[in-house]
Amino acid sequence: MNYPEPITRLIEAFRRLPGVGPRSAARMTWHVLNGSYDDAVEMARAVVGVHKNITRCTACGNYTDTASNPCPICADPERDAATICVVESAEDVLALERAGGYRGVYHVLGGTFNPASGKGAAAIRSGELVQRAKNGPVNEIIIATNPSIEGEATALYLAEILEPLGLQITRPAHGIPMGADLEFLDGDTIARAMSARRRMENK
Amino acid sequence: MNYPEPITRLIEAFRRLPGVGPRSAARMTWHVLNGSYDDAVEMARAVVGVHKNITRCTACGNYTDTASNPCPICADPERDAATICVVESAEDVLALERAGGYRGVYHVLGGTFNPASGKGAAAIRSGELVQRAKNGPVNEIIIATNPSIEGEATALYLAEILEPLGLQITRPAHGIPMGADLEFLDGDTIARAMSARRRMENK
Repeated sequence: MNYPEPITRLIEAFRRLPGVGPRSAARMTWHVLNGSYDDAVEMARAVVGVHKNITRCTACGNYTDTASNPCPICADPERDAATICVVESAEDVLALERAGGYRGVYHVLGGTFNPASGKGAAAIRSGELVQRAKNGPVNEIIIATNPSIEGEATALYLAEILEPLGLQITRPAHGIPMGADLEFLDGDTIARAMSARRRMENK
Repeated sequence: MNYPEPITRLIEAFRRLPGVGPRSAARMTWHVLNGSYDDAVEMARAVVGVHKNITRCTACGNYTDTASNPCPICADPERDAATICVVESAEDVLALERAGGYRGVYHVLGGTFNPASGKGAAAIRSGELVQRAKNGPVNEIIIATNPSIEGEATALYLAEILEPLGLQITRPAHGIPMGADLEFLDGDTIARAMSARRRMENK
Protein backbone atom coordinates (compact mmCIF):
# COMPACT_ATOMS: atom_id res chain seq x y z
CA MET A 1 0.00 0.00 0.00
CA ASN A 2 1.18 3.49 -0.74
CA TYR A 3 0.53 6.45 1.47
CA PRO A 4 -2.21 8.84 0.32
CA GLU A 5 -0.67 11.56 -1.85
CA PRO A 6 -0.81 14.44 0.71
CA ILE A 7 1.11 12.26 3.18
CA THR A 8 3.74 11.27 0.61
CA ARG A 9 4.15 14.90 -0.29
CA LEU A 10 4.88 15.94 3.31
CA ILE A 11 7.22 12.98 3.87
CA GLU A 12 9.18 14.06 0.81
CA ALA A 13 9.29 17.67 1.99
CA PHE A 14 10.67 16.58 5.38
CA ARG A 15 13.15 14.19 3.76
CA ARG A 16 14.85 17.11 2.06
CA LEU A 17 15.85 18.43 5.49
CA PRO A 18 19.38 17.56 6.62
CA GLY A 19 19.71 14.42 8.74
CA VAL A 20 16.16 13.26 8.05
CA GLY A 21 15.78 9.74 6.64
CA PRO A 22 12.60 8.09 5.37
CA ARG A 23 11.62 6.78 8.81
CA SER A 24 12.10 10.09 10.61
CA ALA A 25 10.24 11.90 7.83
CA ALA A 26 7.31 9.51 8.24
CA ARG A 27 7.31 9.95 12.03
CA MET A 28 7.34 13.73 11.63
CA THR A 29 4.49 13.52 9.17
CA TRP A 30 2.38 11.43 11.56
CA HIS A 31 3.12 13.97 14.25
CA VAL A 32 1.83 16.81 12.09
CA LEU A 33 -1.16 14.73 11.04
CA ASN A 34 -2.04 13.79 14.61
CA GLY A 35 -1.46 17.34 15.82
CA SER A 36 -3.82 20.27 15.57
CA TYR A 37 -4.59 22.22 12.42
CA ASP A 38 -3.39 25.38 14.17
CA ASP A 39 0.03 23.84 14.86
CA ALA A 40 0.32 22.88 11.19
CA VAL A 41 -0.57 26.41 10.10
CA GLU A 42 1.98 27.82 12.57
CA MET A 43 4.71 25.57 11.16
CA ALA A 44 3.79 26.48 7.58
CA ARG A 45 3.88 30.20 8.41
CA ALA A 46 7.24 29.82 10.16
CA VAL A 47 8.73 27.99 7.15
CA VAL A 48 7.68 30.71 4.74
CA GLY A 49 8.40 33.40 7.34
CA VAL A 50 12.15 32.81 7.37
CA HIS A 51 12.18 33.70 3.69
CA LYS A 52 9.82 36.65 3.95
CA ASN A 53 11.16 38.20 7.13
CA ILE A 54 14.85 37.38 7.10
CA THR A 55 17.38 39.15 4.93
CA ARG A 56 21.16 39.57 4.74
CA CYS A 57 22.67 42.43 6.72
CA THR A 58 23.90 44.95 4.13
CA ALA A 59 27.03 45.52 6.21
CA CYS A 60 28.24 42.07 7.28
CA GLY A 61 26.09 39.60 5.29
CA ASN A 62 24.74 37.89 8.41
CA TYR A 63 21.07 36.94 8.55
CA THR A 64 18.87 39.57 10.13
CA ASP A 65 15.26 40.49 10.56
CA THR A 66 14.09 42.69 7.65
CA ALA A 67 13.19 45.29 10.30
CA SER A 68 16.79 45.49 11.62
CA ASN A 69 19.22 46.20 8.81
CA PRO A 70 22.15 46.64 9.49
CA CYS A 71 21.93 43.70 11.90
CA PRO A 72 21.95 44.14 15.70
CA ILE A 73 25.68 43.31 15.87
CA CYS A 74 26.72 45.89 13.23
CA ALA A 75 24.35 48.46 14.76
CA ASP A 76 25.64 47.95 18.31
CA PRO A 77 27.78 50.96 19.30
CA GLU A 78 29.45 48.84 21.98
CA ARG A 79 30.99 46.55 19.39
CA ASP A 80 34.41 47.36 17.98
CA ALA A 81 33.86 48.08 14.27
CA ALA A 82 37.63 48.21 13.72
CA THR A 83 37.94 44.46 14.27
CA ILE A 84 36.32 42.25 11.65
CA CYS A 85 36.05 38.50 12.04
CA VAL A 86 35.61 36.80 8.67
CA VAL A 87 33.54 33.58 8.72
CA GLU A 88 32.18 31.23 6.11
CA SER A 89 28.53 31.25 7.17
CA ALA A 90 25.93 32.87 9.39
CA GLU A 91 25.94 29.68 11.48
CA ASP A 92 29.58 30.41 12.34
CA VAL A 93 28.59 33.85 13.67
CA LEU A 94 26.16 32.17 16.04
CA ALA A 95 28.78 29.69 17.19
CA LEU A 96 31.20 32.54 17.96
CA GLU A 97 28.52 34.60 19.71
CA ARG A 98 27.51 31.58 21.79
CA ALA A 99 31.13 31.13 22.80
CA GLY A 100 31.13 34.76 23.92
CA GLY A 101 34.10 37.04 24.47
CA TYR A 102 34.43 38.47 20.96
CA ARG A 103 33.46 42.16 20.82
CA GLY A 104 34.27 43.03 17.22
CA VAL A 105 32.03 42.71 14.17
CA TYR A 106 31.74 40.06 11.45
CA HIS A 107 31.95 39.54 7.74
CA VAL A 108 30.04 36.53 6.40
CA LEU A 109 31.49 35.14 3.17
CA GLY A 110 28.64 32.82 2.34
CA GLY A 111 30.95 29.98 1.30
CA THR A 112 34.56 29.23 0.54
CA PHE A 113 36.76 30.39 -2.31
CA ASN A 114 36.75 27.66 -4.93
CA PRO A 115 36.92 29.02 -8.48
CA ALA A 116 36.99 25.47 -9.89
CA SER A 117 33.40 24.92 -8.75
CA GLY A 118 32.17 28.39 -9.65
CA LYS A 119 32.71 29.93 -6.19
CA GLY A 120 34.88 32.83 -7.26
CA ALA A 121 35.74 36.07 -5.52
CA ALA A 122 32.28 37.55 -6.14
CA ALA A 123 30.46 34.56 -4.66
CA ILE A 124 32.25 34.86 -1.34
CA ARG A 125 31.82 38.61 -0.90
CA SER A 126 35.57 39.21 -0.82
CA GLY A 127 35.25 42.48 -2.74
CA GLU A 128 32.88 43.78 -0.03
CA LEU A 129 35.45 42.79 2.60
CA VAL A 130 38.22 44.74 0.88
CA GLN A 131 35.84 47.69 0.53
CA ARG A 132 34.98 47.59 4.24
CA ALA A 133 38.67 47.43 5.11
CA LYS A 134 39.34 50.44 2.89
CA ASN A 135 36.37 52.53 4.03
CA GLY A 136 36.17 52.22 7.77
CA PRO A 137 39.01 52.54 10.20
CA VAL A 138 39.88 48.83 10.48
CA ASN A 139 42.75 47.58 12.64
CA GLU A 140 42.48 43.84 12.47
CA ILE A 141 40.88 41.21 10.28
CA ILE A 142 40.57 37.77 11.86
CA ILE A 143 40.13 35.13 9.19
CA ALA A 144 38.08 32.46 10.96
CA THR A 145 37.30 30.22 8.01
CA ASN A 146 37.17 26.52 8.91
CA PRO A 147 40.39 24.50 9.15
CA SER A 148 39.40 22.44 6.08
CA ILE A 149 41.17 22.40 2.71
CA GLU A 150 38.63 24.89 1.30
CA GLY A 151 38.72 27.04 4.43
CA GLU A 152 42.53 27.21 4.39
CA ALA A 153 42.56 28.06 0.68
CA THR A 154 40.03 30.82 1.34
CA ALA A 155 42.12 32.18 4.22
CA LEU A 156 45.21 32.28 1.99
CA TYR A 157 43.30 34.02 -0.80
CA LEU A 158 41.86 36.64 1.56
CA ALA A 159 45.23 37.26 3.22
CA GLU A 160 46.64 37.87 -0.25
CA ILE A 161 44.04 40.41 -1.40
CA LEU A 162 44.04 42.18 2.00
CA GLU A 163 47.82 42.33 2.25
CA PRO A 164 48.27 45.62 0.29
CA LEU A 165 46.09 47.43 2.88
CA GLY A 166 48.70 46.92 5.59
CA LEU A 167 46.25 45.77 8.26
CA GLN A 168 46.82 43.21 10.98
CA ILE A 169 45.55 39.91 9.57
CA THR A 170 45.18 37.05 12.03
CA ARG A 171 43.78 33.54 12.17
CA PRO A 172 42.42 31.82 15.31
CA ALA A 173 44.78 29.28 16.88
CA HIS A 174 44.27 25.68 15.87
CA GLY A 175 45.12 22.86 18.22
CA ILE A 176 43.74 20.42 20.71
CA PRO A 177 40.17 21.34 21.68
CA MET A 178 39.40 21.88 25.37
CA GLY A 179 38.29 18.70 27.10
CA ALA A 180 39.52 16.48 24.28
CA ASP A 181 41.24 13.17 24.83
CA LEU A 182 44.47 12.80 22.83
CA GLU A 183 43.71 9.12 22.38
CA PHE A 184 40.64 9.88 20.28
CA LEU A 185 41.87 12.96 18.46
CA ASP A 186 42.72 12.90 14.75
CA GLY A 187 46.37 12.95 13.75
CA ASP A 188 46.13 16.23 11.81
CA THR A 189 44.97 18.11 14.88
CA ILE A 190 47.67 16.58 17.07
CA ALA A 191 50.40 17.30 14.53
CA ARG A 192 49.23 20.88 14.15
CA ALA A 193 49.01 21.38 17.90
CA MET A 194 52.50 19.96 18.38
CA SER A 195 54.13 22.15 15.73
CA ALA A 196 52.33 25.24 17.09
CA ARG A 197 53.36 24.48 20.70
CA ARG A 198 53.99 27.43 22.96
CA ARG A 199 56.26 28.01 25.93
CA MET A 200 54.39 27.64 29.20
CA GLU A 201 54.12 30.82 31.20
CA ASN A 202 55.46 30.91 34.75
CA LYS A 203 52.71 31.10 37.30
CA MET B 1 23.19 36.87 20.67
CA ASN B 2 19.73 35.59 19.99
CA TYR B 3 18.50 34.48 16.63
CA PRO B 4 16.24 36.91 14.78
CA GLU B 5 12.60 36.19 15.70
CA PRO B 6 11.54 34.49 12.41
CA ILE B 7 14.44 32.03 12.80
CA THR B 8 13.60 31.28 16.44
CA ARG B 9 10.01 30.69 15.44
CA LEU B 10 10.94 28.09 12.82
CA ILE B 11 13.45 26.38 15.11
CA GLU B 12 10.70 26.07 17.72
CA ALA B 13 8.25 24.70 15.16
CA PHE B 14 10.78 22.04 14.08
CA ARG B 15 11.66 21.21 17.69
CA ARG B 16 8.08 20.07 18.27
CA LEU B 17 8.63 17.28 15.75
CA PRO B 18 9.52 13.89 17.25
CA GLY B 19 13.22 13.13 17.54
CA VAL B 20 14.30 16.69 16.75
CA GLY B 21 16.59 18.38 19.30
CA PRO B 22 17.71 22.01 19.34
CA ARG B 23 20.73 21.36 17.11
CA SER B 24 18.80 19.42 14.47
CA ALA B 25 16.07 22.06 14.50
CA ALA B 26 18.66 24.77 13.90
CA ARG B 27 20.26 22.79 11.07
CA MET B 28 16.86 22.25 9.46
CA THR B 29 16.10 25.95 9.78
CA TRP B 30 19.38 26.93 8.08
CA HIS B 31 18.55 24.47 5.34
CA VAL B 32 15.17 26.12 4.73
CA LEU B 33 16.74 29.58 4.94
CA ASN B 34 19.51 28.69 2.49
CA GLY B 35 17.07 26.92 0.18
CA SER B 36 14.75 28.49 -2.36
CA TYR B 37 11.54 30.35 -1.56
CA ASP B 38 9.64 27.87 -3.75
CA ASP B 39 10.89 24.93 -1.66
CA ALA B 40 9.76 26.70 1.51
CA VAL B 41 6.32 27.33 0.03
CA GLU B 42 6.10 23.69 -1.08
CA MET B 43 6.92 22.51 2.45
CA ALA B 44 4.42 24.92 3.99
CA ARG B 45 1.70 23.71 1.60
CA ALA B 46 2.50 20.07 2.34
CA VAL B 47 2.31 20.67 6.11
CA VAL B 48 -1.12 22.27 5.86
CA GLY B 49 -2.12 19.84 3.10
CA VAL B 50 -2.08 16.78 5.33
CA HIS B 51 -4.74 18.45 7.45
CA LYS B 52 -6.82 19.75 4.57
CA ASN B 53 -6.65 16.71 2.29
CA ILE B 54 -6.42 13.77 4.68
CA THR B 55 -9.36 12.40 6.63
CA ARG B 56 -10.26 9.25 8.56
CA CYS B 57 -11.87 6.44 6.56
CA THR B 58 -15.49 6.27 7.77
CA ALA B 59 -15.30 2.46 7.72
CA CYS B 60 -11.95 1.56 9.33
CA GLY B 61 -10.62 4.81 10.78
CA ASN B 62 -7.40 4.71 8.75
CA TYR B 63 -6.06 7.91 7.18
CA THR B 64 -7.22 8.43 3.63
CA ASP B 65 -7.33 11.07 0.96
CA THR B 66 -10.55 13.11 1.27
CA ALA B 67 -11.29 12.05 -2.33
CA SER B 68 -11.20 8.30 -1.43
CA ASN B 69 -13.55 7.56 1.45
CA PRO B 70 -13.94 4.69 2.32
CA CYS B 71 -10.20 4.19 1.99
CA PRO B 72 -8.61 2.14 -0.85
CA ILE B 73 -8.29 -0.92 1.42
CA CYS B 74 -11.94 -0.92 2.52
CA ALA B 75 -13.06 -0.20 -1.06
CA ASP B 76 -10.95 -2.99 -2.56
CA PRO B 77 -13.29 -5.88 -3.60
CA GLU B 78 -10.31 -8.25 -3.51
CA ARG B 79 -9.87 -7.78 0.24
CA ASP B 80 -11.71 -10.09 2.61
CA ALA B 81 -14.15 -7.86 4.51
CA ALA B 82 -15.00 -10.75 6.84
CA THR B 83 -11.56 -10.60 8.47
CA ILE B 84 -10.83 -7.48 10.51
CA CYS B 85 -7.41 -6.74 11.93
CA VAL B 86 -7.65 -4.34 14.87
CA VAL B 87 -4.64 -2.02 15.32
CA GLU B 88 -3.81 0.91 17.56
CA SER B 89 -2.85 3.40 14.88
CA ALA B 90 -2.77 4.16 11.17
CA GLU B 91 1.01 3.69 11.31
CA ASP B 92 0.38 0.05 12.27
CA VAL B 93 -1.74 -0.44 9.14
CA LEU B 94 1.20 0.71 7.06
CA ALA B 95 3.59 -1.63 8.87
CA LEU B 96 1.28 -4.58 8.22
CA GLU B 97 0.76 -3.60 4.59
CA ARG B 98 4.49 -3.25 4.10
CA ALA B 99 4.97 -6.73 5.55
CA GLY B 100 2.44 -7.99 2.99
CA GLY B 101 0.43 -11.19 3.06
CA TYR B 102 -2.63 -9.95 4.94
CA ARG B 103 -5.70 -9.75 2.70
CA GLY B 104 -8.41 -8.76 5.21
CA VAL B 105 -9.43 -5.26 6.26
CA TYR B 106 -8.52 -3.12 9.30
CA HIS B 107 -10.01 -1.31 12.24
CA VAL B 108 -7.92 1.54 13.61
CA LEU B 109 -8.57 2.21 17.30
CA GLY B 110 -6.66 5.47 17.50
CA GLY B 111 -5.06 4.60 20.83
CA THR B 112 -5.26 2.11 23.66
CA PHE B 113 -7.98 1.49 26.21
CA ASN B 114 -6.98 3.36 29.35
CA PRO B 115 -9.99 4.78 31.23
CA ALA B 116 -7.68 6.10 33.99
CA SER B 117 -6.19 8.63 31.56
CA GLY B 118 -9.46 9.46 29.82
CA LYS B 119 -9.05 6.98 26.97
CA GLY B 120 -12.34 5.15 27.42
CA ALA B 121 -14.33 2.91 25.10
CA ALA B 122 -15.49 5.86 22.96
CA ALA B 123 -11.96 7.19 22.44
CA ILE B 124 -10.72 3.94 20.95
CA ARG B 125 -13.63 3.38 18.57
CA SER B 126 -14.53 0.09 20.22
CA GLY B 127 -18.26 0.72 19.76
CA GLU B 128 -17.71 1.07 16.01
CA LEU B 129 -15.82 -2.22 16.04
CA VAL B 130 -18.70 -4.05 17.75
CA GLN B 131 -21.09 -2.43 15.27
CA ARG B 132 -19.01 -3.58 12.29
CA ALA B 133 -18.85 -7.09 13.74
CA LYS B 134 -22.63 -7.10 14.15
CA ASN B 135 -23.48 -5.58 10.75
CA GLY B 136 -21.25 -7.26 8.22
CA PRO B 137 -20.64 -10.94 7.91
CA VAL B 138 -17.45 -11.12 9.97
CA ASN B 139 -15.63 -14.40 10.62
CA GLU B 140 -12.49 -13.38 12.43
CA ILE B 141 -11.19 -10.43 14.38
CA ILE B 142 -7.42 -10.32 14.80
CA ILE B 143 -6.50 -8.09 17.73
CA ALA B 144 -3.08 -6.75 16.72
CA THR B 145 -2.59 -4.17 19.45
CA ASN B 146 1.03 -3.84 20.57
CA PRO B 147 2.50 -6.27 23.11
CA SER B 148 2.78 -3.49 25.73
CA ILE B 149 0.87 -3.25 29.01
CA GLU B 150 -1.68 -0.88 27.42
CA GLY B 151 -1.90 -2.96 24.24
CA GLU B 152 -2.51 -6.15 26.20
CA ALA B 153 -5.16 -4.45 28.37
CA THR B 154 -6.85 -3.18 25.22
CA ALA B 155 -6.78 -6.65 23.67
CA LEU B 156 -8.38 -8.14 26.79
CA TYR B 157 -11.05 -5.43 26.86
CA LEU B 158 -11.90 -5.92 23.18
CA ALA B 159 -11.99 -9.71 23.52
CA GLU B 160 -14.46 -9.26 26.37
CA ILE B 161 -16.87 -6.96 24.53
CA LEU B 162 -16.65 -9.01 21.31
CA GLU B 163 -17.08 -12.35 23.05
CA PRO B 164 -20.95 -12.35 23.02
CA LEU B 165 -20.91 -12.18 19.20
CA GLY B 166 -19.40 -15.65 18.94
CA LEU B 167 -16.74 -14.74 16.37
CA GLN B 168 -13.26 -16.13 16.05
CA ILE B 169 -11.02 -13.74 17.99
CA THR B 170 -7.27 -14.13 17.49
CA ARG B 171 -4.03 -12.38 18.39
CA PRO B 172 -0.80 -12.48 16.34
CA ALA B 173 1.89 -14.79 17.74
CA HIS B 174 4.50 -13.18 19.95
CA GLY B 175 8.00 -14.53 20.15
CA ILE B 176 11.53 -14.18 18.89
CA PRO B 177 11.64 -11.88 15.85
CA MET B 178 13.16 -13.22 12.64
CA GLY B 179 16.89 -12.60 12.37
CA ALA B 180 17.19 -11.73 16.06
CA ASP B 181 20.12 -12.79 18.19
CA LEU B 182 19.05 -14.38 21.48
CA GLU B 183 22.03 -12.80 23.17
CA PHE B 184 20.67 -9.30 22.60
CA LEU B 185 16.97 -10.01 23.03
CA ASP B 186 15.05 -8.79 26.10
CA GLY B 187 14.07 -11.36 28.71
CA ASP B 188 10.32 -10.79 28.35
CA THR B 189 10.40 -11.76 24.69
CA ILE B 190 12.52 -14.84 25.37
CA ALA B 191 10.31 -15.96 28.26
CA ARG B 192 7.19 -15.48 26.15
CA ALA B 193 8.71 -17.32 23.20
CA MET B 194 9.77 -20.21 25.43
CA SER B 195 6.37 -20.64 27.07
CA ALA B 196 4.64 -20.44 23.69
CA ARG B 197 6.97 -22.98 22.11
CA ARG B 198 5.56 -25.27 19.46
CA ARG B 199 6.33 -28.80 18.35
CA MET B 200 8.55 -28.86 15.25
CA GLU B 201 6.86 -30.27 12.20
CA ASN B 202 8.47 -33.20 10.38
CA LYS B 203 9.85 -32.22 7.08
